[in-house]
Order: sequence, then structure tokens, then C-alpha cells
Amino acid sequence: MKKYSVIGKHLPRIDGVVKATGEAKSTVDIFLPGMLYGKILRSPYPHARILNIDTSKAESLPGVRAVITCKDTPGIKFGLFDTPDFPADEYPLALDKVRYIGDEVAAIAAIDEDIAEEALDLVEVEYEELPAVFDPEEAMEPGSPQLHDHVERNISFKTVWDFGDLEKGFKESDYVREDRFTTQATAHCAFEPHVALASFDSSGSLTVWTSCQSPFNWALQLALTLDMQESKVRVLNPHVGGGFGGKVELFAYGFCAALLSKKTGRPVKITLTREEVFSTTRQRHPTLIDLKTGVKKDGILMAVHCKLIADGGAYTSTGPIFIHLFGSWILSAYRLPNLHYEGYRAYTNKSARGAQRGHGNPQPRFALDSQLDIIAEELGLDPVDIRLKNALRTNDILCNGTRITTSGLTECIQRAAESVGWRKKRGNLPKNRGMGMGCCGFLSGMVVPPYVSSGAFVKVHADGGVTVLAGIPEIGQGSDSAMSQIVADEMGIALEDVRIISGDTGIVPPHPGSYSNRGTLWAGNAVKAAALDAKQQLFEVIAETLEANVEDLEAKDRRIYVKGSPERGMAFQEAVLASLMGSSGNPILGRGYFKPNADLVNFETGKGVLTPAYGFDAHIAEVEVDPETGKVKVLKTTIANDCGVAINPMAVEGQIQGAMSMGLGQVVSEDVVMEKGLIMNPSFLTYQIVTALDIPDCKTILIEDVDPEIPLGAKTAEGTGVTALPAIANAIYDAIGVRIKDLPITPEKILNALKEKGGK
Amino acid sequence: MKKYSVIGKHLPRIDGVVKATGEAKSTVDIFLPGMLYGKILRSPYPHARILNIDTSKAESLPGVRAVITCKDTPGIKFGLFDTPDFPADEYPLALDKVRYIGDEVAAIAAIDEDIAEEALDLVEVEYEELPAVFDPEEAMEPGSPQLHDHVERNISFKTVWDFGDLEKGFKESDYVREDRFTTQATAHCAFEPHVALASFDSSGSLTVWTSCQSPFNWALQLALTLDMQESKVRVLNPHVGGGFGGKVELFAYGFCAALLSKKTGRPVKITLTREEVFSTTRQRHPTLIDLKTGVKKDGILMAVHCKLIADGGAYTSTGPIFIHLFGSWILSAYRLPNLHYEGYRAYTNKSARGAQRGHGNPQPRFALDSQLDIIAEELGLDPVDIRLKNALRTNDILCNGTRITTSGLTECIQRAAESVGWRKKRGNLPKNRGMGMGCCGFLSGMVVPPYVSSGAFVKVHADGGVTVLAGIPEIGQGSDSAMSQIVADEMGIALEDVRIISGDTGIVPPHPGSYSNRGTLWAGNAVKAAALDAKQQLFEVIAETLEANVEDLEAKDRRIYVKGSPERGMAFQEAVLASLMGSSGNPILGRGYFKPNADLVNFETGKGVLTPAYGFDAHIAEVEVDPETGKVKVLKTTIANDCGVAINPMAVEGQIQGAMSMGLGQVVSEDVVMEKGLIMNPSFLTYQIVTALDIPDCKTILIEDVDPEIPLGAKTAEGTGVTALPAIANAIYDAIGVRIKDLPITPEKILNALKEKGGK
Repeated sequence: MKKYSVIGKHLPRIDGVVKATGEAKSTVDIFLPGMLYGKILRSPYPHARILNIDTSKAESLPGVRAVITCKDTPGIKFGLFDTPDFPADEYPLALDKVRYIGDEVAAIAAIDEDIAEEALDLVEVEYEELPAVFDPEEAMEPGSPQLHDHVERNISFKTVWDFGDLEKGFKESDYVREDRFTTQATAHCAFEPHVALASFDSSGSLTVWTSCQSPFNWALQLALTLDMQESKVRVLNPHVGGGFGGKVELFAYGFCAALLSKKTGRPVKITLTREEVFSTTRQRHPTLIDLKTGVKKDGILMAVHCKLIADGGAYTSTGPIFIHLFGSWILSAYRLPNLHYEGYRAYTNKSARGAQRGHGNPQPRFALDSQLDIIAEELGLDPVDIRLKNALRTNDILCNGTRITTSGLTECIQRAAESVGWRKKRGNLPKNRGMGMGCCGFLSGMVVPPYVSSGAFVKVHADGGVTVLAGIPEIGQGSDSAMSQIVADEMGIALEDVRIISGDTGIVPPHPGSYSNRGTLWAGNAVKAAALDAKQQLFEVIAETLEANVEDLEAKDRRIYVKGSPERGMAFQEAVLASLMGSSGNPILGRGYFKPNADLVNFETGKGVLTPAYGFDAHIAEVEVDPETGKVKVLKTTIANDCGVAINPMAVEGQIQGAMSMGLGQVVSEDVVMEKGLIMNPSFLTYQIVTALDIPDCKTILIEDVDPEIPLGAKTAEGTGVTALPAIANAIYDAIGVRIKDLPITPEKILNALKEKGGK
Repeated sequence: MKKYSVIGKHLPRIDGVVKATGEAKSTVDIFLPGMLYGKILRSPYPHARILNIDTSKAESLPGVRAVITCKDTPGIKFGLFDTPDFPADEYPLALDKVRYIGDEVAAIAAIDEDIAEEALDLVEVEYEELPAVFDPEEAMEPGSPQLHDHVERNISFKTVWDFGDLEKGFKESDYVREDRFTTQATAHCAFEPHVALASFDSSGSLTVWTSCQSPFNWALQLALTLDMQESKVRVLNPHVGGGFGGKVELFAYGFCAALLSKKTGRPVKITLTREEVFSTTRQRHPTLIDLKTGVKKDGILMAVHCKLIADGGAYTSTGPIFIHLFGSWILSAYRLPNLHYEGYRAYTNKSARGAQRGHGNPQPRFALDSQLDIIAEELGLDPVDIRLKNALRTNDILCNGTRITTSGLTECIQRAAESVGWRKKRGNLPKNRGMGMGCCGFLSGMVVPPYVSSGAFVKVHADGGVTVLAGIPEIGQGSDSAMSQIVADEMGIALEDVRIISGDTGIVPPHPGSYSNRGTLWAGNAVKAAALDAKQQLFEVIAETLEANVEDLEAKDRRIYVKGSPERGMAFQEAVLASLMGSSGNPILGRGYFKPNADLVNFETGKGVLTPAYGFDAHIAEVEVDPETGKVKVLKTTIANDCGVAINPMAVEGQIQGAMSMGLGQVVSEDVVMEKGLIMNPSFLTYQIVTALDIPDCKTILIEDVDPEIPLGAKTAEGTGVTALPAIANAIYDAIGVRIKDLPITPEKILNALKEKGGK
């Protein structure tokens, strides 16, 4: 690996201190003078026609400053896109129908939250209840209640792919296995609720502070739905209290805050309650997965037939991307020559489902890697061996034509297995203990228009300090720290010499957003390019003084010198002053961007380059199951992760552990429970995320399989949240001999399964 | 002149609406949560030794959070520079001595202003009074009280220049005239007082909001005096309520706000009272000017001997620059082959004098253009003719070797004279009415290290909107509007498509500051360069699609097309999307800077290129003097100004009228009256600035003498505040036949002179 000076070091986050002291302000902490508070009136019915809305009583309540309904809006639907494949199908405020309990009907701005809340009760809405549908399979039956007019049988999106020769694949298989797996809806549970503070000024410019993952996307969507110029909208995300995929899109509350501000001429803040966050923002898609797999008797995968039905809820959200990704993930861990995939997303009368950490990957990996263990057992193969036989390798071509540029998966499997002593321990564990493995490949950002690249500016101060204006927004994932390290390394200065500005669409160059795991690869290479641009300018200024060619110069340790002759050089600051005060007086201003080698998603064919590089991981869980209570305790997880160059190994470990803990929750406890469209557990009391006490000892092994096709060589380390699912599910089976194919694997399900097994 | 589409239009300011509604916030309007209020303890003596400071009582007053004295500081003196020529001679808080009434001794931060004020009285300072000196000539006498140890006879700075052959010049003169002129101290009278709000965070970064003209200078000076990295200091200037040269430098209050914030861990705001602004910030240098001029009998200037003694007050401030500029201005209106100039600046026990609108130009022009009228009368020449004969012309070489790249002065004089009907009216005006002319040349920015150039970034949004990150701070002069026009013009888009960010050292590229009239020329060319850089990138992306060469493309009216074939083109936004979403996906990011062709100031020789271009103006005042009261009423002023390309003629006219009104105040009423170092009129009640009722009808004639050596061709329009002085003084003489050589020309002086004249 190339020798770095600041990259690769275990370094604390640059925003660690201000976060620890509380000086770091999030949107929830921001209060502007004269600010109003907004509240949203929501549908109490899962499906109903709106006959009339009378806001007059609410408007006359003292302290109320504005009430808006659909008729106050420009009447433009929103959604990530608006194409035939990917329709915008959601009005910011319901036009004629509501489609889930919580659907937005009206919004109110008042001088305090209590008055706004009180005014909600004074809005009189006349509804005509309509029959509702909650089950995705039922929704696609003819004759079911229709949520939208633009599609038939509530099919929000569907795709069918055929790669290779499926029939031949199954014919050549020695063993074919069929199973149905099901997964639940889970919530993101970000610490900071969804919130937006919007302020129009009298010149018609809009500034919005919000806890979001993609300020540029918000700016575009706000401009679109408010029918104004995008460049007149400035979106800032101050320190964000978590996103996990749940804060990518614009939501009605953001639009309403802006429109209420426009109407009142005052800043308006809307903070969702925790109940609203659970009930009206996105969740992970629940799925029904019918999976048929054919293998040779030595375990080599020959063919997969997979039918997915996803419960999409009332609106599109990221639906088509989810369906596309699900299919892509089937291919992204093991060699598979033949695939038939059909994915359906059904509209149901529930809140819409969208992106969540791992977007589309946990579900198929739970199914595929669980079934792989079933197959291995049937064939008498070791789970590690069957994975090693099938693991994707560098330069493999997938059956959809995509090339895997690098894969360290084989080494991940080997190293994880060695680390836990798999060969010796498995089968010899104490009673009710078990171990299991899961693997996956994961993307480093997919391409979503219009921003298919990441940009950055760099400027150098007179004292040799450097400011980076980075497109990538810091949402808690540590990008500000990583970007600063990359710039410091490239420019040969110290980390403390770098200041970074991000999360302000008014200032920084565009970046799609902090989602889809693009951060380090895309933005890292963008800031590197900007830093290089600046460094070259410095080199050009001082090359003559140093009697050297520009290409022979090197910057390191706050000095610039001739490669190999560190004494022939000058301090970095000296070079900066030479440039600033020299005959051309040029301030050092760098610009850079990075466009990954990847294609726009082809929703129809499933072909094309999904992402510039895949990260991989192998995950081993060791669990103990209490057969009396059915309770699962995860004792230890061991994760070998191929993340390419680890910019900051401490941050990578943190990301791996965080993702693992979310995956753990999804296997053993988390579930958004609904009854007739009503969420029964919209609070942290009743929705059970794992806490510090549940987190097992977690060993991380970094396999830095550097991708030579990426300037920086850094990929992604997020897959752990995906592989936790099959690893733990497989470990539970290993511990007690029952296979649960329906998530979450609750004590109740375990006890029932044990009972059934005992009964047999 | 090159045809522009957005440049050259009469356009309202882009910040006009938010200023009119009050939404535009200045530093005085900013209040941060937990903010403390600072107050400064000041010396009651003009000169004293500090024997002891006891802060204990002040510290124990409830509500006081910190008290600082010199011993709490790093003990670093501040000043614009610290060179032998240009010493830093001012401690942020007095170390051992105080040198004027108001000198800073201690500072206090408390939970409100009243408590801070009360605590001031509890600081016990033991002083030993020292003899003081208030007169600059006396100060330079041997044996006078010495203010500083580092110089003798209180000579803060001196310079002696000899260009040409003075003796020969006088020998060849037909007429030699000697006069002494004196000018007073005047105050800037900015609407917003001096104020700083400083906030250290626990990571050691400092953010300062302040009403200042040069945020980058503040950042450098704060870092220096606080002994920290400059790039850890971020200085923002929100909407500034006027500067006029009085807010260029860092002052003790800015330093104290920062140090108090560091000590308390809380934001600290110090707002000077109006009395403090008058008493402790800078003023215009009062001067004694002994002027000897030799001319041929036809009025051709042959030689000038000028001795200047300037009253500098207690510290250096911009002193050496003032002395240098004064000498330079002697040369910058009329051809002059031979000059002896000696300039002295004396320390006196008064607040320091520094830059004020026109910096060093009003004083010599008052003297030179008054004396020129005296000479003209003695020789029987018309004031217009003697000026036309001597006026500097394009490509003239001054006697110090500097070339005048363009001069429209001749046309200015002619056009102004024609406009008022000079030839017909002069001598034929009603009794007690008179008209007079004054001329000057003025600079477009001088070079002060370390920032000898101006920088800008440009970024393009998906909707074709453009954001400019401009180094130049908007201080009310309208630079944000002008820069936006220049960018819109260069990129062929509309003004409303441009958003500008300025006044934030954390974000924007460096720029020396909004002083020395550099704005339009330096920063205008910087933003133009950045816009061009961005435009070229767009051209490169679409050239192939348009089947054209990059150099054949043109951007105008929100379209890009082949020159001469407007139909062969596409919308600007279409090009942006083609670039963003194209195969290389490049976001359009421009960078640019401009370094003027000018030299660092040579304080010793007076040689070198002072500024990249001179603007010129000829100013005619028509006045009426009431012989009973001595009151002067200016009836009309006519100003012909050679400003090069007028980016926004309405803004140019506004600047001309504003400068004229300040000049008017300086001739007829303004005066900082001192008695033994104590300012007697530190309020708007007693310090008489002119008001709307005093402002005459003002006719502006723009002579757009485009400088071909500057990309944009725009120069400066600020000279009007300078030429108002001689124009009005000459008009007064023309009206009543008495010549007042001592500013201001008060009714009292006029009555005395009339009495004396009558008595003769």
C-alpha cells in the first residue's frame, strides 16, 4: 500500500470535542428570532377521500399565523424523480385522498407549539372512508382497493431479470432447495428527530436548516415543489443526529415549514414528535422472498430463482431503487452463473417504505445466506467451505455483465474463521451455543442524477492552514474528519491545519448526499483532487526557487521539498507566502471533483455498473439461546471487512460496530407492529432497539484490499449491518437446531419452533 | 466600449429589499445564547504611567465573568505591520503606560452591560500622571514629553522625496507662491458603531462577527495578538453599517472580546458607545501644510516644495501609509516636473489617527487646488484654464517615474465646466454667490501584504443559477451587487441567477479588504476570472454537441451558442445539466483571482507603481454665503468623474454623492474639538455632520475612460469627497472674496475674515 502520513492513522473525530461539550448545535437546537412553530394535521384513516377542509376556526385561534392545505401549494407532487418508472406520487399536502394513517392534510404555524397543536383540532376535515389494503400480496390481487390511479393492481414497481440460462442451471444442479423467507419493517431510530427550520426573506430567497442526509436533494425538491429557482434555496445541515437512510428525501414537514414561512414572512420550525417519526417517515421494506437455489453436490452455486414481494406502503419513496438493489445484492457475494429475479413492490395503506442502512441488502442476504447454510448441511459441507468455494474474487464477471474490480471476500472468510477458531470450535460448543457466518458485498455509492459526481474547493490561508469546502454533508458518519485527513495527507500538512466546511448548499460544491455509502470513495477523491490542484499551484510557484521540476516536488510534514532530498525545500507556509506575495500574487485556490466509473441505474435490465467498487465482509456470530425463555444472547461477533484503504481505522471500526448493532436489532427484536395501518409501537419504550447492554464483544479485522482503479483505494465498510442477519440466524440454528425464516427471531418464535421440533 | 448585457445598467442593489425591511442583520443585531457583554476600562489621563492595577473588587462583583488586563494577554503589540518603518506600537491593553484619554487598560465580561459598566468602576488603577503633548510641532521639539521609547522627538514616521530638479524648477518659474494650509481631525461617523462578537469553542477555534472592512486583516491580526493559528480564526462581517476607512484595523475591543471569550468559554460581545467611537477609534489626520509652488506666467506648474506635519495621535495606525499617500497625491492631478516633499507624522497624546475616505488626499488637494486658484487669480488666468493646461493625461510619466495608464481629467474639466456654463456664469453671479473648481486623481487600490490580490470561487447549480464566493467584503458600498453583475455578464445569465457569499474568511478566497478603493477593479476582475473559468468548462462540455470550437462559443441571455449563429446553441441550464450528468459528470467549479499591476509601497523613495489605475474627477461647487451669519450654503455641485467602465451607473452616482456629502461636511462644519486631549464633542449632537437638508443638488457626469490595461476597464469613483474641499473653498472665495486656508470654513472664520477684509 502507498505510504500515507495522515491517512491510516487511528485518530479521534475532529468534531469530537464540540459534540462532547454540547457546543455542536443540531437543527433541533436552533431558534431564530420571531420564529413560529409548525404542526401537521394528519389523516386518522388508512384510506379515505377528502370531501372538504374547513380551516376557518383554526385560523381564528389567537396565536395562529397561518394554516395551509393542498390548495395553498403549487399542486406539484414530489418524489425523488418523476419518470414513468419512478413516478412522483405524493402531494406535500393531500389533494383528494389520504392513503395511510398519518398522511399529511394541513399544516399550521403558530407562536408556540401548544397553540399550533390546539389549532390542529379546530381544522374540520370531512372524510369519506374507503376500504384499505394492508397485505402486499392481497394488494396485488384483482379487485383490491386501489391506492393510486396511475398503476393497476397497486403495483408500485416491478422488474424481471434473466441472466444466464436458468433452466440449464437447475438441470445441471445436483440439489435444489426452495424456501420462503420473510422480513419485517424496521425503523431508523436516529437520535435527532426529523426537523426543518425554514426562513424566506423578502427578496424571495429561502434558507432551510434541517437534519438531513442530502442537502442538495432537499434544495432541488424544495425548489421543484415550491415552484421556485433551485439556486434561491439554501439548505444547511448543522450537526445531524443520525440518518441511516431515513433522512435522504424531502418530506412534507420540510415543504410545509417552507411554505408556512413564505406565507407568514417569519421563520417556521417543524419538529416531528417521536411518534410522528415512527409513523410517518420511512421504514425498511418488509419482504416476502421465495427463493429457489440449485447447487452442485460440492456446493457450487448453479442457479437462483428469486421472487420478491415488497410491501411499499402508500407512496413510491425509493421503491424502484430498493427493488433494483435487492436484485443486485443477490449477485454480489457469491459467484452465480444463472439468475431469474422478479421483484414486485406493492402499494399498501401504510406509511411509505424507503431507504434504510444497507438499502435492499439485509433482506436477500438473510434469505440467501440462511438457505446456503441449509444447503451446506444437507450436502454435509462446512458453512465456511461452501462460502469459500463460491466467494466472488477480483475481476470476476457477474452474470449481468458487471466486473468486480476487487474482492477481498475470500480473505475475509478465511481470516474471520481463523480468528474464531471455526474449524476447532464449531460443533464442539457448549449446549445451546452456536456459531454462524454471513457474507455480503456492498456498494460504494450508486449513481443517481442529477449529481453523479462529488465536488470540493480548497483554499490556503496565509499561515499555511487549509480550508476545505466539501460537498459531502457530515451526518454523524465522520466524513468531515475523513475528508480533513485526506486533504492533510495530500498536501503534506497536519490534520489540525485543516478546517472543513460542509453541509451548506449555498457554499459547497455539489454532492449527491451522505447515503448509498459513497462518502469516502466519491467525496474523498473529490477533496483529494482539489487538494492536488492546490498543491500543484504551490509547486509551480516555488519550483524555480528550489531549482527543481514541479513533478519532482513532494509535500510532507508541513514542508515542500525535492523528492529524495528533504533538505532542498521550504516550509509549507513559506511557499504559501511566496505565492500570495509573489509577482503574480496568486492565492492558492483548488477545485476538484470525482465521478465514479458507474452507470445510471437501468431499472429495466438490471445491467450496468452499479457502483465503482464493492466492499465485502464476512461476519461470524457466536450466540447462546436460552431454551426456557427463547432469548438470544449474542456473545461475540467477529467481522473481517474488505474496505480498501482504511482512512481512519478507528472510524472504520466504529462504523462496523454501529452497523452490526443495527443488524443485531433487526434479527432479534426490532419490528414495526401494525394493526389495520396503525403502528402499535411508535416509541422507544415499545419499539425495541438494542442498547449498549445488548452489544456483544466485537472483533474487527480489516482486510485492506486496495482497489487500484480508485485514486484513493478506499471502498466501503458498511456491510456489517447486512451480514449480522444471516450470521446470527445461522448461529441460532447452530445453537438449538431450529431454523427461523421469519424476522425478527423473537423468543416467542424460538419457543414455538422448539416446541414444534420437540413435538415431532 | 465593449458591449455588456448586465454591466452598465442602472440596477437597484441586490440587498436593497432586505435592508429596507430590516431583515439584514448587522453585528449589533446578533445575540448568541449564553452571550456575555464586554466593557473596556479606559485611561482618564492623556499620558500616565500605570503603577498598579487591582481587579479583585471588579472580579467579585456578582455577574462579572472575567476581568483582563495586559498581563492576561500574550503581550504582543499590534499594528498593521511590524517593520522598522512601520512599527507595531500598541498593546491591546496598556502595559506600562497610557498615551491618550481613552487608552485601553482593562476589559470586563459580565452577564449584562450594566454590570460590566458597574464593574469598570471597581477596577483600581494607580497612575502616575506624565506631562503630555498635544501639538505636533511642539511634540517634535527637543525636550517634549516622549510618548514612545522607540523613536526620538515623537517622530512617528517621516519621509523626504526629491523628484526632478527643484531648484531649477523654481528658478525657471515666473511666479512663486507660498502658503500654509491647515486641516482638522474629522470622524467617520458610520451608522453602525464599532462592535465585535467573539466566540471560542472548546476545540480552540475562534469565530468573530464584526463590523469591519477587512475580515482577512482582522483574522491575521487576531491570530497574531492571541498567539494562535490564523486558519483557526474565522471572521465574518454581516451587513456592515458603514466603514469609510474607520474599520480597517483590528482594535483593542476586538481583541478583548476574543480573549474574554477564551477565558470564559462564552461568546462575548463588545459594542462601543458612540462616545467611544468618537474618542477611541481613528480619525482623519489633522495637518499643517507649508506649500510653495512655482509656475510659468501662463500657469504651467514648474515646482512644488511641500512640508507636511501631521498630527498622528498616540499610535502608528496607518501613519506611514498616510504620509506616503499624501506625497503621492501631490503628483496625481496635474503635471509637475519637480517636487520636494517632506512629510512628518508626530505622536501626540490623542487617539490615533488613521485612514478615512480619501486617505491622505483631501488635505493636499485642499491646499494645492486652493493655492492654484490664488495663483490663477494673481496671473489673471481662469481656474478652468489653468487646470486644463496642467491636467494629467493618458500615458503621462510622473516625476517619480510612475506612468498614468489612462486619464480622462481633461474631459472631466471640460464637461463639468460646460455643464455649469462656467465661461458665461463665472464673474456674473449674484452677490455673495460664487463657484469654484477642484480636481484630483485617485487610486484603485494600493498593494498591502500579505494579500496582494483578490480571489473568488464560482459554482453553478443544477438550475443554471450561480453562486459566487467573493473575497471582497460588502460593507455597504454595494460590492455584492457589482460582483453579481460582473459574474452575470461574464456568464451570460441574468442578475437574479446569481447569489453571492462574501464577508466570511472561513469560506471565501482572500481579499485585502474593502478599503483603498480596490473593490471593483481588483475583486471585479477576480470574480470575472472565476466566472470565465467556469464558463470555459461549460463550453468544453458542449462544444462537441454544438459542433463548434470552444473559442467560437458565446454565453448570453441564459443561452450558449455559436458566435454569430444564435440558433446553434442551447439553454445555459441545459449545458449545466449536460456537464453534471455527462460522462465525466463534472460540476462546474470556477476559481479566479486578480493581481493588479502595482508595487509594494516603497516608503523610503516614494517611487513605484502605487495603483493599477487612477480615476479622476473635476468638481464644481456653486455656493451662497450669508455675510451676516457667515453661513455657507452649497447650492449645487457638478461632478465629472472618470471612473472607467461604470458597472452600475446608479451605484457610481450614489458613491459620488455620498463622498461629496462627506467632503462637504469636512469643508464647512466637521471638527473633532479637543481640549488637553479630551474630545469636547463626541456625539452627533455636537459633532456636526451634514444631513439630508444640507445636501445640494448634485449633477453627475460619468466619463467612462476605459483603461485598456485592466480586463474589466473599471477604475474608481471615490475622488469626489476629495475635490469637494477645494471646490467649495474656492467657491466661497469667489462668493465673498476671502480666502480661508484653515479647515473647517466655519461661519465664525468667515465673519472674522470678512471683518478683517472690511477693516483693511
